[in-house]
Amino acid sequence: MVYHPGKKLVILAEGCFGKKGSKTAIGVIRYGANPVAAVLDSSHAGQTVADVLGIRPDIPIVSSLDEVESLLGTTADALVIGIAPRGGSLPAAWKDIIKDALDRGMDVWNGLHLMMTEDPELMEHAQRSGAVVWDVRKPQPNLPVSSGHARHVPAHVILAVGSDCSVGKMTVMLEVEKVATQRGIRALFCPTGQTGIMIKGWGVPIDRVISDFVAGGAEKLVLEAAEDNDLILVEGQGSLFHAGYSGVTLGLMHGTMPDHLVLCYQVGRPTVGDGYGVNTPSLKEMIRVYETMAAAVKPSPVIAIVVNTWGMSDEEARAELKRAEAETGLPSDDVVRYGADRILDAILEAGKTLSKPART
Amino acid sequence: MVYHPGKKLVILAEGCFGKKGSKTAIGVIRYGANPVAAVLDSSHAGQTVADVLGIRPDIPIVSSLDEVESLLGTTADALVIGIAPRGGSLPAAWKDIIKDALDRGMDVWNGLHLMMTEDPELMEHAQRSGAVVWDVRKPQPNLPVSSGHARHVPAHVILAVGSDCSVGKMTVMLEVEKVATQRGIRALFCPTGQTGIMIKGWGVPIDRVISDFVAGGAEKLVLEAAEDNDLILVEGQGSLFHAGYSGVTLGLMHGTMPDHLVLCYQVGRPTVGDGYGVNTPSLKEMIRVYETMAAAVKPSPVIAIVVNTWGMSDEEARAELKRAEAETGLPSDDVVRYGADRILDAILEAGKTLSKPART
Repeated sequence: MVYHPGKKLVILAEGCFGKKGSKTAIGVIRYGANPVAAVLDSSHAGQTVADVLGIRPDIPIVSSLDEVESLLGTTADALVIGIAPRGGSLPAAWKDIIKDALDRGMDVWNGLHLMMTEDPELMEHAQRSGAVVWDVRKPQPNLPVSSGHARHVPAHVILAVGSDCSVGKMTVMLEVEKVATQRGIRALFCPTGQTGIMIKGWGVPIDRVISDFVAGGAEKLVLEAAEDNDLILVEGQGSLFHAGYSGVTLGLMHGTMPDHLVLCYQVGRPTVGDGYGVNTPSLKEMIRVYETMAAAVKPSPVIAIVVNTWGMSDEEARAELKRAEAETGLPSDDVVRYGADRILDAILEAGKTLSKPART
Repeated sequence: MVYHPGKKLVILAEGCFGKKGSKTAIGVIRYGANPVAAVLDSSHAGQTVADVLGIRPDIPIVSSLDEVESLLGTTADALVIGIAPRGGSLPAAWKDIIKDALDRGMDVWNGLHLMMTEDPELMEHAQRSGAVVWDVRKPQPNLPVSSGHARHVPAHVILAVGSDCSVGKMTVMLEVEKVATQRGIRALFCPTGQTGIMIKGWGVPIDRVISDFVAGGAEKLVLEAAEDNDLILVEGQGSLFHAGYSGVTLGLMHGTMPDHLVLCYQVGRPTVGDGYGVNTPSLKEMIRVYETMAAAVKPSPVIAIVVNTWGMSDEEARAELKRAEAETGLPSDDVVRYGADRILDAILEAGKTLSKPART
């Protein structure tokens, strides 16, 4: 198996660690089970991850795989592509780093749309050293059209939705899974994107699935997760307000048929996406639209608000949470700052009203 | 080029011509530019298309390609796969017919999800005779994420939406294109599904596009069509109320950013899809949901109702149209029965209120 939580990772984030495009790098560092040996970004070389993110002073940022080897005294196990290149094609400099990693026998975990297993040059390097390339975003073959069966699972199904991309939909579900598990609940985070899949080692890369089978792929996740779990926490994707990805979001909503939604937003994002001409709506309006769209297939109320207050002072963050609660009447919290207990409480409270035989 | 409107077609509809699964066969017969030499369905052999559909007594239904050759005195140019097999894989009997067609030098136009160009056995037969296999549902490579630019095209953009699959979303846009063209308007039907693409020879098979690029593929259609046309008529797909395909529908809506929507439904369809547990909503409710979802990105009012009254008497059909008008206050018509003039009038009337410099 390519994924194993014991594998020691080097994360490629050349030129942009900590910036918008390095979501995968940050996600794997923050939530991955795997030890991270180093981040590769020559623009931050000599610093540690803590200098950029404020956490993990133990992870050095380096400028080459040679440096990693001298620090570790050995070769790391895998190179994680932690950023997305502009325009979608692989910069030549990155390709050299990837070939170098493969030559050293390191696996490559690739979350880009670009499939490295279809690049004959990279595969030749992999074959020579015995390294394995994992195209994280390659969907399972033969995903079905959805059947509507997710409606009937006895587990309590939660989906994270959001105002936009990259506001914290993965994060909240991971944080809720953590506190739920601590409380002894059989909870399972279901990955639907490349970062979530790298963190957990499984999932359906829903934005890469052929559109006719998106709901079917999402449904499959829920049906399988419901076999052994009582609380199913589905990672959200995109936003109904993001013109580029709203179809992915809706396919995920109608495929998983969640009982409840958790709505995420980030403070200080006046528009949705970039260039689409869409202003971020009020929380009330977002709730109205999400609940309308869910109810087209199955009612699914928004039961909590998750606020990404990144960059705010504690005082500002608390004021924002109060504002969100006042506007919506719903429990509102920043799960990274204050933990996910209140959000989990809201989920469990809502679960009590379910007419299906939920087991939480 | 594989597609040419002069090519003489044989349409494979073995075992189910005229039934639910033969939508592609019926669409190509009704709207395709190509001459149709015969329909291949041994269960109706000896009849004509008119015996089943009520139109085209000139097209015989036969049970073999040999029969077609003796009728024509020559080989037809292409075999159209006009039906979808249950379960998605190709029945052995069909495969024999397809190989037979290829051996005779006939092209094959295939609209299934199953890609025949990836079947080595079929491709060997094609190569031997020089026939060409057209996988109609194979999307253009490298479709982009949408940019939001469809908002700014000066043309008047209309999208057909519906209560369900197979209610008439393609048909209405084809009928409106016909009457608009007769009136001298530069109108263009934009195909988004396999049948529309076979009818017109171009388009984006939107339900086969990787989900991240659905809106981008839809946008591309509009941007290209707007270069030379004033009225853009986008074929709809699926339904926001169909749990299996709603993501495709929304991607198409938000990618094309239509100015107006035309809502289609068929009388006598109490549920949406089969097994999803969704009852067909009232017209008012469907309008509310479609307008809510469009407005998440760009307001796009429903301006006309298209009713598929198939199987009703003229009196019943007229009563249903009156009922739809009374409920919605919108012009309502069955474009197959009564032509698309009233729907086009409603579109042109709505176009007058556009703030963008529409050219119709």
